[in-house]
Amino acid sequence: MAAYEVSFDTAPDRYRHWTLAVDGQVATLTLKVDENGGLVPGYELKMNSYDLGVDIELADVVQRLRFEHPRVRAVVVTGGLSRMFCAGANIRMLAQSSHAWKVNFCKFTNETRNAIEDATASSGQTYIAALNGTAAGGGYEIALACDQIVLVDDGSSAVSLPEVPMLGVLPGTGGLTRVVDKRHVRRDRADVFATKVEGLKGRTAVEWGLVDAAVTRARFQDEIARRTAAAVAAAADRDSATDRDGAEGVALTPLDRAVDGDVVRYPHVEARLDRAARRVDIIVAAPEGGPPESAAAVRAQGVDYWPFAVFRALDDLILRLRTNEPDLGTWVFRTTGDAGLVGEYDAQLLALHGRDWFVGEVVHFVKRTLKRLDVTSRSLVALVEPGSAFAGTLLELALASDRQYMLEGVFEDVDPDAEPARIVVTGANDGLYPMGNGLTRLASRFYGADKALTDVLARTGEALDAGAAADLGLVTATPDDIDWDDEIRIALEERSALSPDALSGMEANHRFVGPETVETKIFGRLAAWQNWIFVRPNASGPDGALRRYGTGQRPDFDFDRV
Amino acid sequence: MAAYEVSFDTAPDRYRHWTLAVDGQVATLTLKVDENGGLVPGYELKMNSYDLGVDIELADVVQRLRFEHPRVRAVVVTGGLSRMFCAGANIRMLAQSSHAWKVNFCKFTNETRNAIEDATASSGQTYIAALNGTAAGGGYEIALACDQIVLVDDGSSAVSLPEVPMLGVLPGTGGLTRVVDKRHVRRDRADVFATKVEGLKGRTAVEWGLVDAAVTRARFQDEIARRTAAAVAAAADRDSATDRDGAEGVALTPLDRAVDGDVVRYPHVEARLDRAARRVDIIVAAPEGGPPESAAAVRAQGVDYWPFAVFRALDDLILRLRTNEPDLGTWVFRTTGDAGLVGEYDAQLLALHGRDWFVGEVVHFVKRTLKRLDVTSRSLVALVEPGSAFAGTLLELALASDRQYMLEGVFEDVDPDAEPARIVVTGANDGLYPMGNGLTRLASRFYGADKALTDVLARTGEALDAGAAADLGLVTATPDDIDWDDEIRIALEERSALSPDALSGMEANHRFVGPETVETKIFGRLAAWQNWIFVRPNASGPDGALRRYGTGQRPDFDFDRV
Repeated sequence: MAAYEVSFDTAPDRYRHWTLAVDGQVATLTLKVDENGGLVPGYELKMNSYDLGVDIELADVVQRLRFEHPRVRAVVVTGGLSRMFCAGANIRMLAQSSHAWKVNFCKFTNETRNAIEDATASSGQTYIAALNGTAAGGGYEIALACDQIVLVDDGSSAVSLPEVPMLGVLPGTGGLTRVVDKRHVRRDRADVFATKVEGLKGRTAVEWGLVDAAVTRARFQDEIARRTAAAVAAAADRDSATDRDGAEGVALTPLDRAVDGDVVRYPHVEARLDRAARRVDIIVAAPEGGPPESAAAVRAQGVDYWPFAVFRALDDLILRLRTNEPDLGTWVFRTTGDAGLVGEYDAQLLALHGRDWFVGEVVHFVKRTLKRLDVTSRSLVALVEPGSAFAGTLLELALASDRQYMLEGVFEDVDPDAEPARIVVTGANDGLYPMGNGLTRLASRFYGADKALTDVLARTGEALDAGAAADLGLVTATPDDIDWDDEIRIALEERSALSPDALSGMEANHRFVGPETVETKIFGRLAAWQNWIFVRPNASGPDGALRRYGTGQRPDFDFDRV
Repeated sequence: MAAYEVSFDTAPDRYRHWTLAVDGQVATLTLKVDENGGLVPGYELKMNSYDLGVDIELADVVQRLRFEHPRVRAVVVTGGLSRMFCAGANIRMLAQSSHAWKVNFCKFTNETRNAIEDATASSGQTYIAALNGTAAGGGYEIALACDQIVLVDDGSSAVSLPEVPMLGVLPGTGGLTRVVDKRHVRRDRADVFATKVEGLKGRTAVEWGLVDAAVTRARFQDEIARRTAAAVAAAADRDSATDRDGAEGVALTPLDRAVDGDVVRYPHVEARLDRAARRVDIIVAAPEGGPPESAAAVRAQGVDYWPFAVFRALDDLILRLRTNEPDLGTWVFRTTGDAGLVGEYDAQLLALHGRDWFVGEVVHFVKRTLKRLDVTSRSLVALVEPGSAFAGTLLELALASDRQYMLEGVFEDVDPDAEPARIVVTGANDGLYPMGNGLTRLASRFYGADKALTDVLARTGEALDAGAAADLGLVTATPDDIDWDDEIRIALEERSALSPDALSGMEANHRFVGPETVETKIFGRLAAWQNWIFVRPNASGPDGALRRYGTGQRPDFDFDRV
C-alpha cells in the first residue's frame, strides 16, 4: 500500500496551482505553483515545478473545459511567474519517490498530455502554449501537447529538455517522441536539443520546429490573441453541427463515492478489494431503464446520464487503484443487469454523438477511460456469467481485458432456471472507442484475421451464448458449471503468483498489435525505456544523477553501454 | 572491458552445435548442441539450450546459405535430439550473466531471427521449422522466425513460451510480438499461452495459430518434404530473374582482420580505440578504382568486391565492439577517398541488384549491417572533412549517425589547397537500404517534411559543399577551420560524460520515427521492457526468479505492480 492515499477529486475553487479564466470562447489556464502545496512532504515546488498534485488539477481542468465550457474554442496555457513558464517535474520529488511512484506519476501525466491533444482533435478546443518564460523538461512537454507553441523572445527564455544531460533520465512525458514524431524536428537536431541543458530560444527554436513562433514581449499578447481568434474562427463550422454554439455546460459535480472498508461504491459501479488474493472485483451495473428521450433530456441528466456516470466512476476507480493499491495486481470485471438496455443507450450514443456536443463528449470520455485501462499495468480479467450485461459499451471492458471467461449454461445450484449468459456486440464496438493504436478493440483482437472480424460484426445486435461467443472468438474459455469455480480460481491464483514485472511487460506487448501512433510509442517504447533508466543505478542509485542533483557532486556513472 | 573476448568468426567445419546439409535446392540445419561447448565457463548446454556461441553459428550459417548456396530455396530447421527441438536460451547462462551481457545477447539473437526472416522475404529462401520435439522459449522463437512451423504430434511435443511463469522475464527474441503481430494469435490466447509453462501441442497449437501443422511422427518427414517442394516450386519465377537457377555460390572466406593493440584493420576499414576518451574512430576507405565490368566479374571478386568487403568488415567490427568493448560509448565515422568511385559502385548496385543474385545479396547485406548500426546502443557521430567520401552507400553511415559535422572550407594549417568536403546523395540513398521502420534513412530524417526530402532527392548526384548540405538539412553543423577542433572536441567530451543509460534510451527513441513494424517493435517496445525486467530484483535479485530457478526454492517477489 502507498504511504499516502491520493484522491483525484478537485475543482477550480480548490486549485492551488492553476487558475482558469474563461472569456467567451477563449479560456486561459495560468500555472502558478504553490511552492508549499506539494502532495506529499519533502520538497518545495519552486520555479513552477510540478508533482502529481499539480497535474491532477491540470487533468481536472482539461476535463471541465470540455464539459462545463463547451463553447470554448481556444485554450491559452501560460505561466504566472515572470521568467519561468514551468521547470518541469520537481526533481527532489522524483529523487525521493519510489520507482513505482515515478512510473505511475509519468503514466498519469502522459494521459493528461494526451487528453489535451484529444480536446483539440476531438472537440476542437485548440490549446495554445503561451510560453512567457522558459519551458524546461516537463514544462516544455506541456507545450508539446498543445497544438501551437509561442515562446517569448526576450534573449533568455528558452525551451529545453535537460533530463538526459542534467538528470540521467529521459523526458518522461512524451518529449522525445513528440519532438520527432509530432513536430518533425530532424533527429540530429533532436539529439543536440535533448543533450543541451540550456535548450534553445528565439529564431533557432523556430527554425528547428521546436516552437511555432518566438515574439518579443511587446508583441506577445497580440500574437496570442491573433492565434486564439484564428482558432475560434476555424471551429465555427464544426460547432454548428454539434449544437455547440450556444451550448450551456454540464457541471461536473463531485463524484458520489462511498468507501466502506475494502468496498468502494459509486452509482452503477462497485469495487471489492481482496487484499489476501491481491485482487479487485469490479462490478458494473447496466442501466435500470431506457435512455432519455432527447439530446436535451440527456444534457439535463448531465453527470447522471448512465454511460457518463459509469465511466466517471470507472475513471476515478482506475486512478485510485493504480496510485494507492499497487499490489492488487488483478482486476476482475463483472457486469449485471439488462444487456438490452445497454444496447438502447448505445443506439443513442451512436445516433447523437456526431450531432450533440454533450453526447459527443461522453463518448470521448468513455474512450479515454477505456484507454486508461489499456495502459494499466494490472492483469484484467472479465467474467461473463448469467445475469451479466456485456453488451456494446460494457463489452469494451471485456475486450480491454487480457482474458474473457464465459459460463456455458447456468449455475445449477444457484439458479437452474436462470437465463444463460449472453454477449452482445453493438455498433459502439465498431468505432466509438478506438484504442491508442487507432484500431477498435475488436479490430485489435482480430488483427490479421479479417474474416473473423467480419463474422463478428455480422452478428451485431444478436445475443450470443457461450458457444457462439467462443466460435466467434469473443471469449477465451467457456467452462461449464462443474468446472467454472475451479478454473477461475486456479487462473486467478496462478496469475497472482507470477512476477508482476514480467506481467506488466507481457501485457504491454500483447495489448497493442498492429499500427503504432505517437500515443502507443509514448506508452510502449518511451515509457519502457524510461522505466528501465529510472531503475538503473546511474539514475536512482546513491551516486546516480537523480540523487546527486543539487548536491554539487557529479554523478558517478558506470559507463558500460547496455 | 568484457571478461572474454568474443569472436564472431566461424565456419561450418568448425561448428559445434549446428550441422548444415545441402541437397540440391533444399538445405537442412540440425541443432544438436554440444553440452560442453559453452562460450564461457559455468554452465552446460543441456536439452539443446543455447548461448551466444550457438547463435553465432546460426547467424553464420544463415549468412552462408545466401552467399554460398544461392540455389537453396527451402531451409529446414530441425533438432538432433529425440524429444526436445530446443529448450531456448540456457537459464544458468542468463542467471550468471551481467545485465549488459544479457541485453547484448538478446540483441544479437534478435538480429539473427530477423536475418532468417530477411532471407525468406528478400532472397526467397523459405525457412521451415520442423519441430521434431518440444520448442520451448527461445526454441519456439527460432521457429517463429521461420516462414512455416510444423510440430510433431506425438502426445508430448509442445511449443511454449515459459519465460513469464517460469523465469519472471519476457521471451527475449521477439516471441510476444511475433505471436500477435506476425502469426495473429488472438491476444487473450497469447496471454494464456505465454503464462502456461508447458505450452500447447497438437490440434490446439494449430487452431490457435501457434504452428501451421501438427502431424504424427510417421507423417512428419512427408509433410516437411511436401512443404519444401512447394517452396522450391514457388521460387522458380523469381529465380530466373536474378540468374539464381544455376548459380554457383560465393565463398565467405575468413575476414582479413589485424588487431594491433588498440587498432583494428580490415581492408578498407580501420578502427582506433581510444579508451581514455571512451571512443572509437572508424575510418572507411572508398574504392581505389572503378567497379568490375560485369555481374560475372563482380561475382569473381566475391568477398573482395568493394561494397561487400567494406560492410563485412563493418559488420564484424560492430559485433566485436558491442560485445567486447561496452564502455567505448561513442563511435565516430570518417571516410576517405574518391566519392566519385563510390558513386560508380552505387550505380552498379542499382543497375544489377534486381538482376544478379550476388549483387542483390550484397545490397541486402549492406542493409542488414546498417540496421545493426541503427539498433546499436552507442552514440554515433559522422565527421565530414576534406578528403572524405560520404557518397551514397557510405553516406548511409552518416545518416545512421546521431549527428553529422561537416567542415566549412578546409584546414588551412594542414592543406590550404585541399578540395573542401563534399557530400553526394545517390540513388542508393533512395531505397536500397530501408531501416527497420520500412523507411529510408533519408525519409526518416525528413519524416513529416516531405518538401525537404524532395529537395534533397532533386540534388541526387551533385557534390554538395557544407553550405548546400546544411541548407538541405543533411548535416547538423558546419563549423569552419577555426571552430572545428574545439566544437568537435567539446561535443565528444560532453557526450562521453552523459549517462550511458539515458543515451541508449534517447537514441532508441530518436532513431525510429514514423511507422513501426514487427522489427522496430521488437527492438523498441519489447526489448526495452525486457531490459527493465532483467534489471529488476524480481528477476535478477538474489531472491528473483532467474536466480532461484533450479534451486527448488520459489522466487520471492515484491508484488507491487509498476
